Amino acid sequence: MTDTTEAPELRGGIDLGGTKIEAIVVDTNNKVLGSARHPTPTSGTPADVAASMAQAIAEAAEAAGTTTEKLAGVGIGSPGSINPDAGTVSSARNLPGWEGSYALGPELSKKLGTRVAIGNDVQVATAAELKLGVGKQYSSLLGLFWGTGVGGGLVFDGKPWRGRGGAGEIGHMVIKLGGRRCPCGNEGCVEAYAGRAAMEAHARHEIDHGRKSDLLKIMEHKQRERFTSAVWETAVERGDELAIELIDGAVEALGAGAASAVNLLDVEAVVIGGGLGVRFGDEYVDRIRDAMKKHLFPGHTMPTVQLVGLGDMGGAIGAALLVNGSGA
Amino acid sequence: MTDTTEAPELRGGIDLGGTKIEAIVVDTNNKVLGSARHPTPTSGTPADVAASMAQAIAEAAEAAGTTTEKLAGVGIGSPGSINPDAGTVSSARNLPGWEGSYALGPELSKKLGTRVAIGNDVQVATAAELKLGVGKQYSSLLGLFWGTGVGGGLVFDGKPWRGRGGAGEIGHMVIKLGGRRCPCGNEGCVEAYAGRAAMEAHARHEIDHGRKSDLLKIMEHKQRERFTSAVWETAVERGDELAIELIDGAVEALGAGAASAVNLLDVEAVVIGGGLGVRFGDEYVDRIRDAMKKHLFPGHTMPTVQLVGLGDMGGAIGAALLVNGSGA
Repeated sequence: MTDTTEAPELRGGIDLGGTKIEAIVVDTNNKVLGSARHPTPTSGTPADVAASMAQAIAEAAEAAGTTTEKLAGVGIGSPGSINPDAGTVSSARNLPGWEGSYALGPELSKKLGTRVAIGNDVQVATAAELKLGVGKQYSSLLGLFWGTGVGGGLVFDGKPWRGRGGAGEIGHMVIKLGGRRCPCGNEGCVEAYAGRAAMEAHARHEIDHGRKSDLLKIMEHKQRERFTSAVWETAVERGDELAIELIDGAVEALGAGAASAVNLLDVEAVVIGGGLGVRFGDEYVDRIRDAMKKHLFPGHTMPTVQLVGLGDMGGAIGAALLVNGSGA
Repeated sequence: MTDTTEAPELRGGIDLGGTKIEAIVVDTNNKVLGSARHPTPTSGTPADVAASMAQAIAEAAEAAGTTTEKLAGVGIGSPGSINPDAGTVSSARNLPGWEGSYALGPELSKKLGTRVAIGNDVQVATAAELKLGVGKQYSSLLGLFWGTGVGGGLVFDGKPWRGRGGAGEIGHMVIKLGGRRCPCGNEGCVEAYAGRAAMEAHARHEIDHGRKSDLLKIMEHKQRERFTSAVWETAVERGDELAIELIDGAVEALGAGAASAVNLLDVEAVVIGGGLGVRFGDEYVDRIRDAMKKHLFPGHTMPTVQLVGLGDMGGAIGAALLVNGSGA
């Protein structure tokens, strides 16, 4: 639309996660010129979340030597159900007070003085991996994002697959009939075992019922209000039995879910990201691959399984790709 | 390739199932002019299966007033791992002595005196539904084939999705970690609960261990060697507790598997076929839809769930579509 050969434009990207808001400003080569990170508000309303997002992208713009008004636009990767045309987000379960619909796009556009485009958080992160990360070499892939929730992004024939708009809910594939209750309300979903929010709820329940664990102590020491990825990592490193048990269960659940998806779709690659995925890194990618093996259909070839190439910036970079329709 | 306006050509189609071989001859409008059905050999080698197939298609040709040599070609929908170029089928677990690879295409081509094209049984049945059955009105769908095994066919953007060749193994999605052993060797797959072969093995085991059931008596009365779809149907109609328990378990497993696939793919429609699917019909399609509901991701819209439009001829019709590249 715009002639970038004459005036290279900067774009903003915001990854709205259940735990943190990551905001960046990139140039036409998708190089990150400035970034800022805020914790996602744990209480309040969608308007409070929007205010934190506006502050984060303003800081990222300042770090890049500009202001939000001068950006070609800001892309947002959001959880929940997205209407890209209206710019609304609804049913974002991991965000405070966001059961209904909120006009995030129009509100932020007003605050920032530039255009705002919204896409699904996991779909934009997958698109970023496809365009700029490890996905470049594959024409079909499954992005598996292990964080507050568990999300999936799909690419077939080099193109994102969104179904009727909601495709990718790998976290809500059933892996255990009659199993643990999931934050979504259903039973036995992958996310019930592997989502950070579900694991925290389960751990707190166990601790309340007398189970020994240092998870709370580690959280307080790190001055956090939640069991963040770093809290889980430290607990596991210290040999905390409850943390190890839950992380092991998460690995099994992710392996079963990913293998089920591969049995169905026979994609070339599985790319693992998300807050926990990136934090636990290659060692856990290996463990998830091992967990997949015992569920892979015997006639199938194991796909490549690897860590995202863009680290925890992938979501924000993918969001920035939404501007000018250059991405997801 | 051939000018059908001058000389309308007849094509053959063979659906090679775990229980029966269905052979048909169709005209250019895919109208069935002749058909024949043989039981799939339960012992012997792939060559014995090929001989039964040759006999079935010869009978179908005769019923259509022609011979196999005069057919434009014969398409085959086969289980197992297919190499369409070489015409080989390997690892067809539900067929006798078919662990290795067998050159089914070349062998049959010699016997029949015409070209032979081979595709995956479930993929061709899905393509038939897409082109001629209830799938016509959808651009994305999941075909769920409930028979000796449980298979799936995928269509995205109006085109079949085959992955690296093996896509569609919905029967081997994990729905119960630590669950029942599947004929594939893994644990807790959909097929372990819903595949006719797995259900029969489980029922015979229960009966051997003293469980009361009329399944064997019904099978003998029907002069069958296996618990066919008709045997299961009669047992359920007569209130046989073991049969009801296993069929109920199959419905739950199919519902969980289909919902998992829909949560991941968000397709417009689920089309249910296969020997058991067609035999049990609309009432069970309703039951499977109900079983899906409790696993559907709350943010998703329930897809249309309906019975295949081509009945149990869909596989053979889809196979015939392979000739002249007119289908899957």
